[in-house]
Amino acid sequence: MKTAITPTREEDFNEWYQEVVKAGDLAENSPVRGCMIIKPHGYSIWEGMQKHLDAEFKRTGHQNVYFPMLIPLSYLEKEAEHVEGFAKECAVVTHRRLVKDGDRLKPDGELGEPYVIRPTSEMVIGEAFAKWVNSYRDLPIKINQWANVMRWEMRPRIFLRTSEFLWQEGHTVHATAEEAVEETLTMLEVYRSFFEDVLAIPVMPGQKTESEKFPGADSTYTIEAMMQDGKALQGGTSHFLGQNFAKAQGIKFADKDLSEKHAYTTSWGVSTRMIGGLIMTHSDDDGLVLPPKIAAVHVKLLPIYKKEAEREEVLAYVNDLMAQVSKIDFNGGKVSVEIDDRDIRGGEKYWSNVKKGYPIILEIGPRDVKNGKVFMTRRDFGTGAKSGLTKEDFITTVASMLEEAQTNLYTRAKEKRDANILDITSKEQFEDVFSRKEFPHKMGFAYIADNEQTRNILSEKQMSFRCMPLTEKEVDGKTCIFTGEPVKRRVIIAKSY
Amino acid sequence: MKTAITPTREEDFNEWYQEVVKAGDLAENSPVRGCMIIKPHGYSIWEGMQKHLDAEFKRTGHQNVYFPMLIPLSYLEKEAEHVEGFAKECAVVTHRRLVKDGDRLKPDGELGEPYVIRPTSEMVIGEAFAKWVNSYRDLPIKINQWANVMRWEMRPRIFLRTSEFLWQEGHTVHATAEEAVEETLTMLEVYRSFFEDVLAIPVMPGQKTESEKFPGADSTYTIEAMMQDGKALQGGTSHFLGQNFAKAQGIKFADKDLSEKHAYTTSWGVSTRMIGGLIMTHSDDDGLVLPPKIAAVHVKLLPIYKKEAEREEVLAYVNDLMAQVSKIDFNGGKVSVEIDDRDIRGGEKYWSNVKKGYPIILEIGPRDVKNGKVFMTRRDFGTGAKSGLTKEDFITTVASMLEEAQTNLYTRAKEKRDANILDITSKEQFEDVFSRKEFPHKMGFAYIADNEQTRNILSEKQMSFRCMPLTEKEVDGKTCIFTGEPVKRRVIIAKSY
Repeated sequence: MKTAITPTREEDFNEWYQEVVKAGDLAENSPVRGCMIIKPHGYSIWEGMQKHLDAEFKRTGHQNVYFPMLIPLSYLEKEAEHVEGFAKECAVVTHRRLVKDGDRLKPDGELGEPYVIRPTSEMVIGEAFAKWVNSYRDLPIKINQWANVMRWEMRPRIFLRTSEFLWQEGHTVHATAEEAVEETLTMLEVYRSFFEDVLAIPVMPGQKTESEKFPGADSTYTIEAMMQDGKALQGGTSHFLGQNFAKAQGIKFADKDLSEKHAYTTSWGVSTRMIGGLIMTHSDDDGLVLPPKIAAVHVKLLPIYKKEAEREEVLAYVNDLMAQVSKIDFNGGKVSVEIDDRDIRGGEKYWSNVKKGYPIILEIGPRDVKNGKVFMTRRDFGTGAKSGLTKEDFITTVASMLEEAQTNLYTRAKEKRDANILDITSKEQFEDVFSRKEFPHKMGFAYIADNEQTRNILSEKQMSFRCMPLTEKEVDGKTCIFTGEPVKRRVIIAKSY
Repeated sequence: MKTAITPTREEDFNEWYQEVVKAGDLAENSPVRGCMIIKPHGYSIWEGMQKHLDAEFKRTGHQNVYFPMLIPLSYLEKEAEHVEGFAKECAVVTHRRLVKDGDRLKPDGELGEPYVIRPTSEMVIGEAFAKWVNSYRDLPIKINQWANVMRWEMRPRIFLRTSEFLWQEGHTVHATAEEAVEETLTMLEVYRSFFEDVLAIPVMPGQKTESEKFPGADSTYTIEAMMQDGKALQGGTSHFLGQNFAKAQGIKFADKDLSEKHAYTTSWGVSTRMIGGLIMTHSDDDGLVLPPKIAAVHVKLLPIYKKEAEREEVLAYVNDLMAQVSKIDFNGGKVSVEIDDRDIRGGEKYWSNVKKGYPIILEIGPRDVKNGKVFMTRRDFGTGAKSGLTKEDFITTVASMLEEAQTNLYTRAKEKRDANILDITSKEQFEDVFSRKEFPHKMGFAYIADNEQTRNILSEKQMSFRCMPLTEKEVDGKTCIFTGEPVKRRVIIAKSY
């Protein structure tokens, strides 16, 4: 069977991904190495993500702010682990103007102190916290910013790993460790419900092992998703930073008993990487598939006609349908409808919309007009399952079909994921399972100690620790499948993005 | 009379401005020279601006995108006037990592080609346009991005002139000059109506003279506002770029007659500078004054009590009031209400809210509860005109009072502006008017030729050409007040921000 995307997922998942991005007109690589151009259809997904998450951040008591993108080198030097983690990928600004050099331009006006473009903003926001926090009355402080960040990337991959990316970073300060941990887990839950309920991506909330923590954090929490090739994708992280940054930056307050204490901080973020995860979870061999709750347009109407005489009546029918459907409630707003009235052949029109992933596509020609019908593709069912229905039936059922499509995508992704997670109870089983070349890859659930020896065994198979699922409690009497050391919590291991 | 802000506007307008920003908790300078930290209350104004403008951009057929913030040096070299205009203020990225140097860090990994952080994105977006545009069927392209930009600033001033600022930049490509000019003027009108109807800032739409055009533009349009000190502020600009960038970057298309043509481009933008303009237009000697249509919170409720016994009944009354007022329609949404329940003295609570500029502030104490009343400050009337009214009367009239406050602020600003614009018909009058040290400064409306001689005369008085108002047509028989040369259009001259 011919597919709209070549190669298929099974033939070459990585290449398939690039082609889905291209065919969906989502983004393209820019001539600036590692940086992407997010095109209108891709950016509309990001706007949907921002809108939903921003409302959640406000609901949970956060306010938006904006901090400078440049960070003085001297700030970075303050927290040793943090700088260790980011130094290798910092873009450095050293000059403040350009001058002519023959026909060319060259940097001029060297800065006394160089700046880095923020790879993340703990160090610049923490300096402000140190000024803003004096008394327990000033706490908690709960802020967020939507911003671009820069981490020089040697193996860029559109949306998934780009040198510049867009994200949000939340930063909070609290009087007690308990309150800061609670904040960390609250935001993890905001991310989890966003992924599962809106993006229809099942995730495992978990804690990172020591070796995989954010540089400078006491503990890092994550939501891990499984892509259709079986590889893991880290969806978002939430960090309990303990007093590490507070001590490095002097974030102190006078408590109720007048004693001076260091505060506790957190940070948490998700990025345009989520768009990559969305694509790799739901899309099929005909291109992008968008869950209705994140799609900017739910129903795409394609007027199809050959003769000029047919044009008017088809457009009138389609416009009337749009007016009616646009009044129907869905997901806290209205059903969003768009007409593709480009003057191109029907086949080209159909497939270009399929590849853009609209949840429902209706082809409407002169015969449909005469019979009062529409010819529907539900994108979650694939392009092989088109159905004709009356205009009235469509209007009556469109909202429930969108709900159904949302649920269907989630359920399908969850079934795929659950079928590819294995309990790994011995070294032999590990070798057996992870030496097979198969599609999709598998994830393992195992007791493994986090040390250099076990990390080497994993990395030989391009695998890593993903997280210790929060659903599991500490147990006694279990040992590492590789080294036999006692281990209290199981980890998920997988190849990853 | 004691004022909440010292100094007053008349005593020292510049210092007053800084104090209003500080007292309103809007923003602060960061340790990164020339860059600011936008705090929650300041950022909420920016969010309001974004929300309104973004809807207008979409209504006028634009889609959002995101382009990389780094621009290769070689791109900048392509359009001579453009690079000339921006080279002196470009932040240059030369290295891609940091390494340890004893206890310190130093830049490492020098880049083959340096990048500048975008001062504006014509050059990087134009390169994409050259790829995207092939046929007349691809036109027009109408995109916008919300982004940060960087122009190194030697004399920074919070919101008004910062090295990094937030803005939106629209970029469009058209097949004909007529269509591109129409786009340029449509977006100028979007800005004009936003300033006048939402920000309540009267503006003069006009065209920049040759010497004040955007580097690389054929013509630049602007909206010019007058601050309370009589100085001009450029509110937003819209540029008809002609074929200059299309030729420099190869943006070409096959027209209907199959001939290859260069396209016409436009660009237009407004920035966080608008927040500075908003402050300097409406605020008074007690601090910030926000027009209701841009305020995130319209009504601030201040429960005032002394004894713990009073607390409960005052809070119950205030919560009930909030519930009722929050249901009232205003400006396409609901009246937004917030309670300040901080446990601080009444005076401190009142003045901190006055300085934050909320359109309506209600003080509510135990006596008000007993009498079913509220004690109101309408911020546009100033703090000297408080009034008591019944809860019912307040609920009935709050929406119309907010409308009234909006109109009042606009009218007041317009009257101030109109009183300070003079017709200048001779060199003697120019010398007389602009040699006086008075508050506020004056703007002049005059026939002046745009050449070096006249620019020098103006700059001796720190004045410049602002624009040629669009309300005026070309006329014959008029001459420059300084040089006697024939001049066809009058210009506005003023000191400016």
